[in-house]
Amino acid sequence: MTRIYFNEVVTRDGFQIEPNFIATDDKIALIDALSQCGYAKIEATSFTSPKAIPMLRDAEEVMGRITRVPGVEYTVLVPNLRGAERALESRADELNLVMSTSETHNLANLRMTREQSFASLAEVVRHVDGRTPINVSLSTCFGCPMEGDVPQAVVEQFAQRFADLGVRGLTICDTTGMAHPAQVSRMVEALQQQLPHTQLTLHFHNTRGMGLANVLAAVQGGITRLDGSLGGLGGCPYAPGASGNICSEDAIHMLDAMGYDTGIDLTKLLNVARHLPAIVGHDVPGQVAKAGRITDLHPAPAYASELKG
Amino acid sequence: MTRIYFNEVVTRDGFQIEPNFIATDDKIALIDALSQCGYAKIEATSFTSPKAIPMLRDAEEVMGRITRVPGVEYTVLVPNLRGAERALESRADELNLVMSTSETHNLANLRMTREQSFASLAEVVRHVDGRTPINVSLSTCFGCPMEGDVPQAVVEQFAQRFADLGVRGLTICDTTGMAHPAQVSRMVEALQQQLPHTQLTLHFHNTRGMGLANVLAAVQGGITRLDGSLGGLGGCPYAPGASGNICSEDAIHMLDAMGYDTGIDLTKLLNVARHLPAIVGHDVPGQVAKAGRITDLHPAPAYASELKG
Repeated sequence: MTRIYFNEVVTRDGFQIEPNFIATDDKIALIDALSQCGYAKIEATSFTSPKAIPMLRDAEEVMGRITRVPGVEYTVLVPNLRGAERALESRADELNLVMSTSETHNLANLRMTREQSFASLAEVVRHVDGRTPINVSLSTCFGCPMEGDVPQAVVEQFAQRFADLGVRGLTICDTTGMAHPAQVSRMVEALQQQLPHTQLTLHFHNTRGMGLANVLAAVQGGITRLDGSLGGLGGCPYAPGASGNICSEDAIHMLDAMGYDTGIDLTKLLNVARHLPAIVGHDVPGQVAKAGRITDLHPAPAYASELKG
Repeated sequence: MTRIYFNEVVTRDGFQIEPNFIATDDKIALIDALSQCGYAKIEATSFTSPKAIPMLRDAEEVMGRITRVPGVEYTVLVPNLRGAERALESRADELNLVMSTSETHNLANLRMTREQSFASLAEVVRHVDGRTPINVSLSTCFGCPMEGDVPQAVVEQFAQRFADLGVRGLTICDTTGMAHPAQVSRMVEALQQQLPHTQLTLHFHNTRGMGLANVLAAVQGGITRLDGSLGGLGGCPYAPGASGNICSEDAIHMLDAMGYDTGIDLTKLLNVARHLPAIVGHDVPGQVAKAGRITDLHPAPAYASELKG
């Protein structure tokens, strides 16, 4: 049975664009509940400026108060040297750096050119100097909502430059749900061949309904690491109408049914997922939490058994 | 480029469980608009008892007043001999018969055992006697929401028995969204090998988010005919929480992006889809109509071009 490793991003990527502040206690309780479900990794929070992302202003407190479960890596988003220092102080298991492969998206999102971002992140990598593993999330690898196509060669170049700096992993992100399965197949084949010693994670959005089809294409192509967001929370402010990250429990439910070993206790996870609307104060896109698993049966109407006679 | 043939079922399967009657004029206008989009087939209505399904009590009027476009087949659901007579009078291009491969679902849905249904439908096939092509939709082929597993061998047996009666096509239905991609791959491989001269159509629901992943598995396996419902309307009363048929425009958008020839004018189709919420009086699950195609770009914020300098 192929092992698939899931990284849960709901408390960072999912919560980041929620309009109302989520209490620190709720974040900690949610991470602690997710820690019991069998995730390989949880992206707990982000060490960005509290002014830039007020939702995650409690990063130190969250990292200090969660109950860490052995076997689960707690990763954090880090935008710069100052964030890296805070992350190291918080004893994060991994630092997740981020930049876009699209110039316009990088300018819009990070207010830097790609080369400025690369130089800044390279400085972080050198500063950390192997004390903690580093992952780099490359945004808009399957297309930019403002520029359109992002050539695969550009993704390959940035992936190579970060691999050459010695980062442990790369996350190839479909930031606004523009990937389609044929493109995913081509991308994962090329990157795995190019970087056989780099942990590759795929990050999909379900903006146009293709999220789980892209997951299927990725695992068919040999990918074993995926990001997901509980309930399908999250999205991108530059893609109006976007419905967010792929839903962790829906993706895990599918792979589980197909016979993959996700390591996840789906019963526990669905219980956690069913509390999510109360935490964020609105309905969420995830479907298995509403419809039940394919193995959850419903009673037949009484007349059916009478007719059976 | 592989040609994929789409059958649009919104005005039958989609509307059937809508709570409020949809005006006959609206149905006709919608079918006429869909006829301009490039569909291979449109399931226009059902010749069931008006008491059983009041929503489709206007079947004769709908079939009489739509503007038929050459190249589009107008198919209708037919439950029995009386329905077949009405369908033939309406000059339907195809009769679509239906039964379940699950005994309990057939009893619950049609109030007959499977053998009673088979005998009744066989009588219809003999009565029609080649005057009009016949398709048989086999429900719950990937699982029954009340019984659970439906062995693939049972599906293969009913498929064979109908093929032996000389029907032109079979639709293999995942009536309540229980199929997963590995199961779809196995099913379509077996049925295509078993019945190389029968038109095979796959009918998926997106109940648990796997709809387009199952479409991907089906077309990867050589299937070229798919059912879809505009906006993702439809569902099954025996699967509470179910989110309905796969959304036609989302499935077509994916296959189109992947390079398949769907024959569909997606711009026209999305325009039609965007009117659907006004027709049914509520939001619908389809995502591309809301988020736009992957080729629809958004303006960059002004500061991004200033930073680019």
